[in-house]
Amino acid sequence: MRDVAVIGVGMTKWGELWEKSLRDIFVETALNALDDAGVDQIGSMYVGSMSSGLFVGQEHIASLLADYLGQTPVPSTRVETACASGGLAFRLAFMEVASGMSDIVLAGGVEKMTDVNGYQATYALGTAADQEYEGYHGITFPGLYALMAMAHMEKYGTTREQLAMVAVKNHHNGSKNPLAQFPFEITVDSVLNSVMVADPLRILDCSPITDGAAAAILCPVEMAKKMNKPVIKVIGTGHATDTIALSSRKDITWIEATHQASKQAYDMAKKKPEDIDLVEVHDCFTIAEICVLEALGIVEKGEGGKAVEEGLTSLDGKIPVNPSGGLKAKGHPVGATGVAQVVEITKQLRGEAGERQVKDARIAMAQNMGGSGGSSVIHIFERE
Amino acid sequence: MRDVAVIGVGMTKWGELWEKSLRDIFVETALNALDDAGVDQIGSMYVGSMSSGLFVGQEHIASLLADYLGQTPVPSTRVETACASGGLAFRLAFMEVASGMSDIVLAGGVEKMTDVNGYQATYALGTAADQEYEGYHGITFPGLYALMAMAHMEKYGTTREQLAMVAVKNHHNGSKNPLAQFPFEITVDSVLNSVMVADPLRILDCSPITDGAAAAILCPVEMAKKMNKPVIKVIGTGHATDTIALSSRKDITWIEATHQASKQAYDMAKKKPEDIDLVEVHDCFTIAEICVLEALGIVEKGEGGKAVEEGLTSLDGKIPVNPSGGLKAKGHPVGATGVAQVVEITKQLRGEAGERQVKDARIAMAQNMGGSGGSSVIHIFERE
Repeated sequence: MRDVAVIGVGMTKWGELWEKSLRDIFVETALNALDDAGVDQIGSMYVGSMSSGLFVGQEHIASLLADYLGQTPVPSTRVETACASGGLAFRLAFMEVASGMSDIVLAGGVEKMTDVNGYQATYALGTAADQEYEGYHGITFPGLYALMAMAHMEKYGTTREQLAMVAVKNHHNGSKNPLAQFPFEITVDSVLNSVMVADPLRILDCSPITDGAAAAILCPVEMAKKMNKPVIKVIGTGHATDTIALSSRKDITWIEATHQASKQAYDMAKKKPEDIDLVEVHDCFTIAEICVLEALGIVEKGEGGKAVEEGLTSLDGKIPVNPSGGLKAKGHPVGATGVAQVVEITKQLRGEAGERQVKDARIAMAQNMGGSGGSSVIHIFERE
Repeated sequence: MRDVAVIGVGMTKWGELWEKSLRDIFVETALNALDDAGVDQIGSMYVGSMSSGLFVGQEHIASLLADYLGQTPVPSTRVETACASGGLAFRLAFMEVASGMSDIVLAGGVEKMTDVNGYQATYALGTAADQEYEGYHGITFPGLYALMAMAHMEKYGTTREQLAMVAVKNHHNGSKNPLAQFPFEITVDSVLNSVMVADPLRILDCSPITDGAAAAILCPVEMAKKMNKPVIKVIGTGHATDTIALSSRKDITWIEATHQASKQAYDMAKKKPEDIDLVEVHDCFTIAEICVLEALGIVEKGEGGKAVEEGLTSLDGKIPVNPSGGLKAKGHPVGATGVAQVVEITKQLRGEAGERQVKDARIAMAQNMGGSGGSSVIHIFERE
């Protein structure tokens, strides 16, 4: 297999984009990535979208978006694994370049979530849970993560304040990201006093409903060098599955799919957690970031809450987590999130992250997951 | 890239399977394929499904099905390109084995379409058309294909009877396929007197709403030989896109995505249309089979109707088309169809197709497409 590099990334302002349709948002962002890469023709493309069918009543978007991007008849593939759809699109694009099937491949992700009323968005997101054993009983994602949070607090003594600190840190980082949906600071007090969604999770523990897209252009490392592009090399990839129903897991505080995917990625990259300079993780709820740090081996089991409290994961900490603002502040258009993590990492490793730049960043990891951890996709990158 | 073979296939009876859920149908079929291959552990899996979200309210099925198949934590990926989702799942499985990323990969497809009422199934299928430029005006797929049929009749003199003959031929073949949804003969008269759906297409011109799944197991050819399996080699793959809105096409009688995908597959396989011994094509409506024969270069432009009338595509004709019964008689669980074509071809090339066996079949092609031809995926196979 060939070595693969990211040579271009694109992202546009995320938020409630009432004036733009799914196709507008995607094309604007993909053109942005093509510009950044300095190419206008691709060999193939992958699009991550969790549920364009339920959100905007449109399937078959792989072809639709290839057409609106002016790229037909190139092969275009939509992939879905709930909120990890974007990471998975990136993984398949990597595989296509690595295998030699295509040279220049676009990996994109998109979700248009605000064209439905609140109930429908919650219903659409809920289809990432087991509909027969979870959804049928009325539980939605805030409820599932609330169960995980309660169990983590009970088992490890994680505090309500530590959960809040995850959101505060991510908003601090997001305040330096002009493309974020909510680029402003919040305080522990404001989290603790925000409206309750599912005990113990309050509204400021939850990532928002967002319209947005992200895109990356991949090619062989050799080609990137000939094009005189900064080489952001993909040195590891991992993808793993687990039961999507929480009730079938041995320990609901432990995200096994992330643990398994990270093992694959570390092995392929020949790296350990301590080699990583920064991480973008899937903080769909504050408790998720805490559990993920543990599953990635960045901290010991049960130590995720303490790590945030002690500043380990701050922008100037030992291992900055979610310098982009994370899902919490940047927004969470579910199918786009995994690709947006790659956008942030590429900017960080190129030294183009502005006020939120992590010093001397050379090796970085992106961790994306679906549902309450039923799937996880992980990539490790290195600046050559 | 490594040479790849199909070493196992599975399919169970298709129809209105009221007593089985999506997960039941898929797992039963996938176990059937694993049994046929003689393996119990896979390295990765792909699942084609057009709209499990709209049909049964369940996304994230890649992980769900890996779990119910007892295969977690293996990577599992759902892909979608409308009714070509199954063919695309097979293509990605091929790519994963060819690249060396995994040795044994399962390609499956599934759709559970009857758990909704008629309106909702038509709505869900309609999301494969352009919702802003087609769906908004109220047109659904029978209407789109009716436009194509009218244009073909006008431009080439294709007759109403020739359309009917496609359905008659496919039901004749399907009557020999015990797994088909409608395994019985029909006549030209019964087609011409069946209820009108969208002029000129009548109900017996249309493929049905079906619950069903199909699965195939792929591995490197070298491994298949060591396992003493009959080697059904994948010698060509093609995937192309086109505008999904008919109104944006230069000629609505011509399926450019199928033409482009077939060029890729013929080139890779180093074969020409005249080398192919049998074809499974995407006859979602009778006119579709006629247009596809032309786009594949099996007959000249405009000659598709005549070809059927003259018996060229019959089971004992020069190039048998849809020996399985096609979508028309076998059924059309949209995400499963592309994989079911591979199941039929594998049985044919192994000489295990019973009463519908095509004599001396050695090279075969599967053509799957999405919507009214906005995407197409094609594979060519050869028995070693």
